[in-house]
Amino acid sequence: MTHAIDKDTRLCISLSGRPSNIGTRFHNHLYAALGLNYVYKAFTTDDLPAAIGGIRALGIRGCGVSMPFKEACIPFIDDLDESAAGLQSVNTIVNEQGRLRGYNTDYLAVRTLLDSHAVPRELRFALRGSGGMARAVLCALRDAGFAEGVVVARNEATGRKLADEYGLPWQADTAGIAPGLLVNVTPLGMAGGPDSETLAFDPALVVAAGHVFDVVAMPAETPLIRAARAAGKPVITGAEVIALQALEQFVLYTGVRPTDAQVAAAAAYSRPA
Amino acid sequence: MTHAIDKDTRLCISLSGRPSNIGTRFHNHLYAALGLNYVYKAFTTDDLPAAIGGIRALGIRGCGVSMPFKEACIPFIDDLDESAAGLQSVNTIVNEQGRLRGYNTDYLAVRTLLDSHAVPRELRFALRGSGGMARAVLCALRDAGFAEGVVVARNEATGRKLADEYGLPWQADTAGIAPGLLVNVTPLGMAGGPDSETLAFDPALVVAAGHVFDVVAMPAETPLIRAARAAGKPVITGAEVIALQALEQFVLYTGVRPTDAQVAAAAAYSRPA
Repeated sequence: MTHAIDKDTRLCISLSGRPSNIGTRFHNHLYAALGLNYVYKAFTTDDLPAAIGGIRALGIRGCGVSMPFKEACIPFIDDLDESAAGLQSVNTIVNEQGRLRGYNTDYLAVRTLLDSHAVPRELRFALRGSGGMARAVLCALRDAGFAEGVVVARNEATGRKLADEYGLPWQADTAGIAPGLLVNVTPLGMAGGPDSETLAFDPALVVAAGHVFDVVAMPAETPLIRAARAAGKPVITGAEVIALQALEQFVLYTGVRPTDAQVAAAAAYSRPA
Repeated sequence: MTHAIDKDTRLCISLSGRPSNIGTRFHNHLYAALGLNYVYKAFTTDDLPAAIGGIRALGIRGCGVSMPFKEACIPFIDDLDESAAGLQSVNTIVNEQGRLRGYNTDYLAVRTLLDSHAVPRELRFALRGSGGMARAVLCALRDAGFAEGVVVARNEATGRKLADEYGLPWQADTAGIAPGLLVNVTPLGMAGGPDSETLAFDPALVVAAGHVFDVVAMPAETPLIRAARAAGKPVITGAEVIALQALEQFVLYTGVRPTDAQVAAAAAYSRPA
């Protein structure tokens, strides 16, 4: 039962180039399940400074930030949590009485999952990808204590830049590497894409690896994850990342931590049909 | 049944110094009754320009404006409807694809009620009050064709100023007047106030008048309205003004005109218990 909206209802929003229903459904489902007087709604904007000014002036409690606003929002908010400061990328804004603080719950989720899955820090990793999420994962790996690895990216410009930033080697493909931890942060294996059946790493690398982490969330069971499970490797899925980052956002906005069952129900409800 | 909020849900808000639940309940009740994908929520702000910038940047569809923002908002919106231009007072902002237009539905409601109650234009009126709503009513009277009247206000400064603006005489009390239309726009007769039992006009004036109009809405049956009904005079109540101005706001935001029964149900639901 949805809480009736009244003057005390707190509004949380998201800002993204192309709003989806996922966050709106996830958060509103949990508000209802927990009887919280909150409401959530996705927005887009063509005037980011004014939109963020509106968050502050209207006392909007929180804001999820997606592409293309994750870095662009930083000049307009008041300070950055550790999770966003290193990355200089914000996916969550929390309004504390007019003071806007930026967080990155993707980073937080990856850090938490590396801990909860007890991925050994001495593993040498190979990270595929060079976009914004690849950067968040790489930053989380570094901060979690993973010292040795390689960035694999077809795009030399973005791949080299990212690798340089973290003092790592770059290479265009997986030739000659022998990593203990495979991390895919590309669209390889993503449903609906041109590479939905493509393995992000060769089967031989999967068999040789200790852990496999695929950030692709749709489907959770990507070709890479399926290959890893078939080879008996422990896995971290993109579905875990998405659910956990949304949960951390929810906790930041409301101060309430739902149960795993409540999160699972909200995630199931929010998934596109 | 409340429409599930999704990315396409349109948000309407209000801005006031002290938000109440009335508008929030009224609008959300009608959205649900009509199956409209809208949601309404009351806000306050300490930064009006940024709040209005946020309305524009977030694509918030409409905004009810109350004290103390009705005049202050004008520099930050794009243009004024006739209903607000003469008064230079806005109680409703409509966002048409990023262009903010100001309306005054109090004015519109009074104009409509003077028509629907067929109040004869040749009546000389006495208007009590000198605040913002008194000004809206006086402007509506003038524009509706009421040419002769008097402003009665205890406060000489605001009373004279308002009377001068409309080329009317001012007086501090009702001594010596003989109006055909009595209009109360003071808190006299308002529930919970110090003057809840005070008649805004003497019984003799009520008996001598042709029509009685009390803008006080709580209660609808003020001492003045009760006296007028007892004397067999046609009345316009503040409850009618409030319901009609909210209805006009609703129509401006949604383009949908609910039935009288739907409005009555929403108004009953929205009234403070």
